[in-house]
Amino acid sequence: MDKIKIVQIGLGPLGQKITRCLVERKETFAIVGAVDVDPKKTGRDLADICDLKQKSGVRIAASLEEVLRRVRPQVALLTTISDMKRITPQIENIVRHGIHVVTTCEELAFPWKTSPQLAGRIDAAARRHKAAVLATGVNPGFLMDFLPTALTGVCQKVEGIRVARIQNAAFRRVPFQRKIGAGLTPAEFKAKRKQGTLRHVGLTESMGMLADRMGWKLDRTEDVLSPIIAGKKINAGAMTIKRGMAAGVQQIGKGYAKGKLKIELVFRAAVGEPDARDVIEIFGEPNIVSTITGGVNGDIATCAVAVNATRQILRVSPGLHTMTDVPVISFFAG
Amino acid sequence: MDKIKIVQIGLGPLGQKITRCLVERKETFAIVGAVDVDPKKTGRDLADICDLKQKSGVRIAASLEEVLRRVRPQVALLTTISDMKRITPQIENIVRHGIHVVTTCEELAFPWKTSPQLAGRIDAAARRHKAAVLATGVNPGFLMDFLPTALTGVCQKVEGIRVARIQNAAFRRVPFQRKIGAGLTPAEFKAKRKQGTLRHVGLTESMGMLADRMGWKLDRTEDVLSPIIAGKKINAGAMTIKRGMAAGVQQIGKGYAKGKLKIELVFRAAVGEPDARDVIEIFGEPNIVSTITGGVNGDIATCAVAVNATRQILRVSPGLHTMTDVPVISFFAG
Repeated sequence: MDKIKIVQIGLGPLGQKITRCLVERKETFAIVGAVDVDPKKTGRDLADICDLKQKSGVRIAASLEEVLRRVRPQVALLTTISDMKRITPQIENIVRHGIHVVTTCEELAFPWKTSPQLAGRIDAAARRHKAAVLATGVNPGFLMDFLPTALTGVCQKVEGIRVARIQNAAFRRVPFQRKIGAGLTPAEFKAKRKQGTLRHVGLTESMGMLADRMGWKLDRTEDVLSPIIAGKKINAGAMTIKRGMAAGVQQIGKGYAKGKLKIELVFRAAVGEPDARDVIEIFGEPNIVSTITGGVNGDIATCAVAVNATRQILRVSPGLHTMTDVPVISFFAG
Repeated sequence: MDKIKIVQIGLGPLGQKITRCLVERKETFAIVGAVDVDPKKTGRDLADICDLKQKSGVRIAASLEEVLRRVRPQVALLTTISDMKRITPQIENIVRHGIHVVTTCEELAFPWKTSPQLAGRIDAAARRHKAAVLATGVNPGFLMDFLPTALTGVCQKVEGIRVARIQNAAFRRVPFQRKIGAGLTPAEFKAKRKQGTLRHVGLTESMGMLADRMGWKLDRTEDVLSPIIAGKKINAGAMTIKRGMAAGVQQIGKGYAKGKLKIELVFRAAVGEPDARDVIEIFGEPNIVSTITGGVNGDIATCAVAVNATRQILRVSPGLHTMTDVPVISFFAG
């Protein structure tokens, strides 16, 4: 099989990690270009920014157009922003060159309810230029939407779906612990919540994707964020959390149809959280309870599913896709 | 959404169950015809054969041609045989009318390694007449092939896959207990094994599907069947199994690439088997252990996935498909 020719656009922490994943699988992927707008990065070899062992021979460009003067990538891996409004012109600019897009933009995972006009713009641009676009990631994109959808395939009836992602942040990096509010006082937590920096983006998108596939019209959704307060002192690597401080965050999404709770998505990440796991419950015929022991490592998973998606994106019809309308994405060797 | 117009072909136990599933979801499906070659069934109302509560108004026909004189189904649900050689002309005959086919034929789940010529014939006929064909079921078709494939989507590396389906037959119907050899002496078990009646068809197909998606060239596969011998007396509803008798069957499929074990599929069904479950293990980066507690009820699941597949089969390109190249099949209401 020919290598898939990729341009990596966006070299923040996630883009750097994806680059390392691509390099690790160099029998399968060829990074033919890289783009970042940060002048501290442009002009340098990808290896310097992404901590690669060997020089890559790929110089970071300031724009896609600069890359296209020399090479013709098949797929752009786009890891710039989570925001639908700001990513739309970026995608329009990529697809007009006939290049497919796989992105980790959370709001694009299922934009048809939340941003139908922007979604329509992306879809139209992609179709016009015969390019396919897909947003994916572990969550949204996999654990709370695609995977439960797949499990309902063996169900004759589905009354409701509940997914819980329970993560113990004790073994995660300090930036991740900070991100989930670990160590904050309740007042600090409240202030940060107001700023919006604690929020995990994607529960609404996952609910939209599930409801769309099940044929449920959600008349109300909610997405409520609250602190998980330490009941006792917790020692977690570099960080000690006193009793009464926030150990992490809980975010619960609920979707109702005709006043009945149909979807519940529980996202808990805290230092010292016991029994880390991903649990999918399908209430139906048959009932299904499926558990991934320990939970899926989110950092690796998001990079992997984005990288793996570059193969399917070459095979689907032009336009904007979601994870539930492309053939299943899997690992593949060689 | 318009109802999906279905002709049910084959009214053995599975076809009857599928018919009941379709009738239960009558907002979604319309059974417009039914076919069986058994003269004891033809001419009678579907309700009489399938134990429906109300007359269906569908008279069982002896051939598809008889059905087509009056109505135009979109999809045929074909539950006649497991055998690739014998099902090929049946499918050719259906698709030449431009009717899509969803079948539970195990050998068709992934026929590209075991029967490439027959698979090619079906594929060519389907393309010629713009019809799509898919074989599905709980196993092969879902638990040991599609679902593990889906889980590897979040993996950066996969070294091996192990799936174990552990069923307790204590609560199943006596015919199922008989089918797995429960209550036989070791000598009787051996004789039945020789006849081939104890064998679960599909492990080879599931291995083929997994290997194809992972990019592994299997140079050897095996499929070994052995009795599970009761270590003590087991009381199981209508049946008592003495110590030293067979309580059920174990079948293990193994697939090797370059001499290394890459795929192991374990199918265990026995009366009194403890801790029933479906477990998928991905050995890679990350490792994934996913467990469905109690296991998926196989009877409901096979009917449900076949019925649910009738929606996707309307949307895919013409030709012979497998579960890993169509968009994910899910339940859907209305």
